[in-house]
Amino acid sequence: MTHTSVTAYAAPAPKAPLERTTIPRRELGAHDILIEIKYAGICHSDIHQVDNGWGEGIFPMVPGHEIAGVVAAVGSEVTRHQVGDRVGVGCMVDSCRECDNCKAGLEQHCTGTGNVQTYNAIGRDGEPTYGGYSTHVVVSEDFALHIPEGIALDVAAPLLCAGITVYSPLSRWGAAPGKKVAVVGLGGLGHMAVQIARAKGAEVTVLSQSLRKKEDGLKLGASDYRATSDPATFEELANSFDLIINTVSADLDLGAYLGLLRTNGTLVQVGAPEQPLRTSPFALLQNNRAMAGSSIGGIPETQEMLDFCAAHGIGAQIELISAEEINDAYRRVQASDVRYRFVIDVSTM
Amino acid sequence: MTHTSVTAYAAPAPKAPLERTTIPRRELGAHDILIEIKYAGICHSDIHQVDNGWGEGIFPMVPGHEIAGVVAAVGSEVTRHQVGDRVGVGCMVDSCRECDNCKAGLEQHCTGTGNVQTYNAIGRDGEPTYGGYSTHVVVSEDFALHIPEGIALDVAAPLLCAGITVYSPLSRWGAAPGKKVAVVGLGGLGHMAVQIARAKGAEVTVLSQSLRKKEDGLKLGASDYRATSDPATFEELANSFDLIINTVSADLDLGAYLGLLRTNGTLVQVGAPEQPLRTSPFALLQNNRAMAGSSIGGIPETQEMLDFCAAHGIGAQIELISAEEINDAYRRVQASDVRYRFVIDVSTM
Repeated sequence: MTHTSVTAYAAPAPKAPLERTTIPRRELGAHDILIEIKYAGICHSDIHQVDNGWGEGIFPMVPGHEIAGVVAAVGSEVTRHQVGDRVGVGCMVDSCRECDNCKAGLEQHCTGTGNVQTYNAIGRDGEPTYGGYSTHVVVSEDFALHIPEGIALDVAAPLLCAGITVYSPLSRWGAAPGKKVAVVGLGGLGHMAVQIARAKGAEVTVLSQSLRKKEDGLKLGASDYRATSDPATFEELANSFDLIINTVSADLDLGAYLGLLRTNGTLVQVGAPEQPLRTSPFALLQNNRAMAGSSIGGIPETQEMLDFCAAHGIGAQIELISAEEINDAYRRVQASDVRYRFVIDVSTM
Repeated sequence: MTHTSVTAYAAPAPKAPLERTTIPRRELGAHDILIEIKYAGICHSDIHQVDNGWGEGIFPMVPGHEIAGVVAAVGSEVTRHQVGDRVGVGCMVDSCRECDNCKAGLEQHCTGTGNVQTYNAIGRDGEPTYGGYSTHVVVSEDFALHIPEGIALDVAAPLLCAGITVYSPLSRWGAAPGKKVAVVGLGGLGHMAVQIARAKGAEVTVLSQSLRKKEDGLKLGASDYRATSDPATFEELANSFDLIINTVSADLDLGAYLGLLRTNGTLVQVGAPEQPLRTSPFALLQNNRAMAGSSIGGIPETQEMLDFCAAHGIGAQIELISAEEINDAYRRVQASDVRYRFVIDVSTM
């Protein structure tokens, strides 16, 4: 198989700074599209994978699964996209397409081959996948989303991971008018959850360690903003939420947060702390509460999310950076010094 | 306030054997009914409370919250019951009746005064409540259920706790035709869960430590019965259930059981182990799984359950005992030597 070389930023080894390099992209297959990447978001999990935090990292590693760009070429049998289309790619670039989950549009839970992640994975062609910190990517047309005209490409990029990660549980667990939703943590995920929950008609409260970002939270659509460092928060808000989206991957006292749920309420975990989740059984038995996990979303729901965000004028709050600022941005993400997502301007690459 | 003395079996102190005694029952209020108790089921939690396992036990203690009997007298303003009616009382005898949960028929989650438990609690009149191991009980008409003619009173008694405890989560989480339900543990709760899930049209698998009760499980309506002591069970049944009802209060490896759930599946905990619930976050994130708690059911749903069981010919499998066999039955419950519920014939009292 022949390849094309393209420019990218890669970590040559675990924990190493990212550096400019060239990587191969496969030739266009009949059902592939070539995307000229315009913007790539920096997700906290990019840093975790460069650090090899989950082990089994494939190096050199080109992170990036929040990709927004324009179709530059299409394979001979492509029907879903045309040259010039605004498109996005999220956390997956392929799956078995044959299992029940794939057929149901839940490719993130593919039980056949498992889905192929956008980077740090081995594709079905046996080659490593490289992510969006790069000028171009070749993907199956089925795993590229349409980005509606209503959203600028730079603020759309983070929707492909941060947006869908919170949109999916907000939909499944019923964020809607008359419902009270709490968002734990106002970071990349949290600031999207506040906007989407509000757009779905729910009443939104942010639960954050401090009140440092309170003004932002209220501007994004929250009607209340409480500090979790204040024990009064847990007393005053006991039994009051229908849904809590926990975007924090730290080792929280989940029993305390579950205590904030009213009858039949659900706490959804969208991040994976390194420690086991733990709670007293009584925190679940009382009020018939549930604790659920949610992992991104399938391709159809990701498209639905993009259309929803465009219709409601929702995008990420971003800080645009040049490619040479990536390593500095990583340090700032780790220091929680970002409001609310770094996005790489790939034209600087 | 005047009282009537009635015969009962009580534990005079924590861990003490139960003995025959007399206890006071309040005079009939305008909205009260007097029930002549015919049968009282022995629930595992009776033993736990006699042992003072949750602390704060009120002694002497008359256990019993699976009560079936006949109305012997009614207060002046009672409208829901008549003398001679077949009635049951479960885990609650009162609640605030004014909070949102009470108004919604979710008295078990009363956020006002909290519900008043049938025994080992202090009633709204300031007096201790005494349970069903007794010849008579006086309760508010609103907390007595109609037992349909289709069910014998002895096999109906355990429905008031064991039945509703599993009926409620089976309903809420969608046991129905086309759904696969697993029941963990074939005891008092489990044997009701198998029958109810099957009657709701689901395909039922029992997950039990051994295959000792396999024949019973299949007769009760399960189509499969697997030993959890066999690691192959967890491999072969991975990603296969929509719903798991965990009736076991032991400290199980919940991550292993969560791994048996297909996409959007739920594991419901109906018992409270003494240890915290623990699981890897990935067990929830994969397949968007949920772990929920469920605590008995409200009065309207308990009536619905009784009507459902009568319509489907479902009752508990019981071993009828005389009052003097109670202490021996306690020992046998602790040794898991009961198929599947001891019921006290109160006429022997």
